Amino acid sequence: MADYDLHHHGDREVGEGLIDLAVNVRLPEPPDWLRRELAGALSALAAYPDTTAATEAVAARHRRDAGEVLVTAGAAEAFTLLATAFRDRNAVVVHPQFTEPEAALRAAGNEPRRVLLPPGYLLDPDLVPGDAELGFVGNPTNPTSVLHRAATLEKLCRPGRILVVDEAFLDAVPGEPESLAEKALPGLVVLRSLTKTWGIAGLRAGYLLAEPEIVARLKEVQPPWSVSTLAARAVVACCRPAALDEADKLAVQAERDRERLVAGLEALGVELPSTPRAPFVLVRIPGAQAIRDRLRAAGYAVRRGDTFPGLDGDHLRVTVRDEATTTGFLRALARLLPA
Amino acid sequence: MADYDLHHHGDREVGEGLIDLAVNVRLPEPPDWLRRELAGALSALAAYPDTTAATEAVAARHRRDAGEVLVTAGAAEAFTLLATAFRDRNAVVVHPQFTEPEAALRAAGNEPRRVLLPPGYLLDPDLVPGDAELGFVGNPTNPTSVLHRAATLEKLCRPGRILVVDEAFLDAVPGEPESLAEKALPGLVVLRSLTKTWGIAGLRAGYLLAEPEIVARLKEVQPPWSVSTLAARAVVACCRPAALDEADKLAVQAERDRERLVAGLEALGVELPSTPRAPFVLVRIPGAQAIRDRLRAAGYAVRRGDTFPGLDGDHLRVTVRDEATTTGFLRALARLLPA
Repeated sequence: MADYDLHHHGDREVGEGLIDLAVNVRLPEPPDWLRRELAGALSALAAYPDTTAATEAVAARHRRDAGEVLVTAGAAEAFTLLATAFRDRNAVVVHPQFTEPEAALRAAGNEPRRVLLPPGYLLDPDLVPGDAELGFVGNPTNPTSVLHRAATLEKLCRPGRILVVDEAFLDAVPGEPESLAEKALPGLVVLRSLTKTWGIAGLRAGYLLAEPEIVARLKEVQPPWSVSTLAARAVVACCRPAALDEADKLAVQAERDRERLVAGLEALGVELPSTPRAPFVLVRIPGAQAIRDRLRAAGYAVRRGDTFPGLDGDHLRVTVRDEATTTGFLRALARLLPA
Repeated sequence: MADYDLHHHGDREVGEGLIDLAVNVRLPEPPDWLRRELAGALSALAAYPDTTAATEAVAARHRRDAGEVLVTAGAAEAFTLLATAFRDRNAVVVHPQFTEPEAALRAAGNEPRRVLLPPGYLLDPDLVPGDAELGFVGNPTNPTSVLHRAATLEKLCRPGRILVVDEAFLDAVPGEPESLAEKALPGLVVLRSLTKTWGIAGLRAGYLLAEPEIVARLKEVQPPWSVSTLAARAVVACCRPAALDEADKLAVQAERDRERLVAGLEALGVELPSTPRAPFVLVRIPGAQAIRDRLRAAGYAVRRGDTFPGLDGDHLRVTVRDEATTTGFLRALARLLPA
């Protein structure tokens, strides 16, 4: 039994009339070009879905073979497939991180060990038990916003081990530094999501990159037609060079927005226990739960931190938004902090 | 290891320029009212999906409590959830039937026993081993098109057994006779799909009805946000009274179209090994595989029967289509049959 509510996510924190700094989806709706693409696919829904084109688009985007790509119904499905296919493996989850990998392992009957990184939350390969046969790390990590070095992650790869690197937020870091998506290392699985950048959390679209043997094994446990026609179309569309350029511009903008948020938080004396590189920031404020409640009363939803193993009630996660939203949020927060 | 290609489905039989009598989706595209509904949801995709409204709509449609409903990413996901959650149960699959339940059981590490119904393919409860703890039956059954009696199915329910009745095609039978969807029997799980009637195979939308304890257990193994926002919207829309009326009219039309097809086949002396009640017909023609190849050359795709346990190379499944398509198909078939 898990001691944390591993299924608590930012979407449970939003509410009618609240300004959302809880969910890590960046666009308020899909961009026009993507919406047009999806609208055009509505008349093609009678056919069963086919991910061939999406698989090829992902392979081309990351310079991998099609056999090294599995398109999934979001990263959430990827976690379930990994947990199911490799159910009997000695598993480790590096926390604090997104809780769905651990939840998926538990749902599959696995009892993963937790590696708890100390504040700063930088990956230390020496903390990961040598006998771990299946490991999960986020990069950049949700909710700490820490970007681990690719070289450090590679140190975790070894014969007989599957290392899953969740890069769901890496396209929000300009230039995608430290990505392992193009590295074909034995046992390495890289997860990607389109949800956050393109405002399509409702569509369920993601993919993973791994050696062909792992992809084949995961396919065996993936329900047929798991990825909808619209999700497959979105994958193709979001792999086009113009979309990749746009994503990078959005990432640059998000970085500027984050710097503004961080500067504002620091000016208020708020502690940042880690160095943020993703479009969200982890903060540590004594009595954060009460602050969170009062922020809600002031119209702002932020995400609680205490559902993440390794964090506690003094932590909150704040999504990076545009200048006006950030300014309003900082003003509201300032009124709630002790002078 | 399965001795049949359990993942072979009608969608693999269609091809460029072929008239499709292989896939059991009835509408060539979603109706206008449904497409408009889906188009309207495209700007709501940034939010994570929420199946609350869909769950309530299904409950109201079948006079069940919301706790007895699980909305799924198509029936295919439901099979995977059942196979995963009840992996350790002594399982039985009644064949010939849709092969995904057995495939899902095998993917979950289960080795189900097969009950092979003899030609006629009517359910005989005495053939099902008394110690089966998890059973799968289709009603009406794909590919035999047989509609079993509700009373016969109920005889299979017993303490300690989960009986899964796949009613994916029942809304294509006028009045939905023999449905168990409104029957809250212990251990009974009824599966439904929207795919076939509404031309949305690409969307992945379905649901199941069962006692709350079973629904809760299945939820534990369902990946979060598994059902997309558009699929959830489709479920709501297709549960409205106007949609149910329209489905029944389509079912009446399909019945007429089937009678025309059956009459034509009988006039050609083609053997029907079972009494069809669904919008597809099983035929037995010695040397059917060669006939199927020659039908393809003549522009018609029908579904091979030899991938279904209990059938062989002499069987084909033919989808019920409109009068013009059926007439053309029968004419093509007539030229290929021995005089």
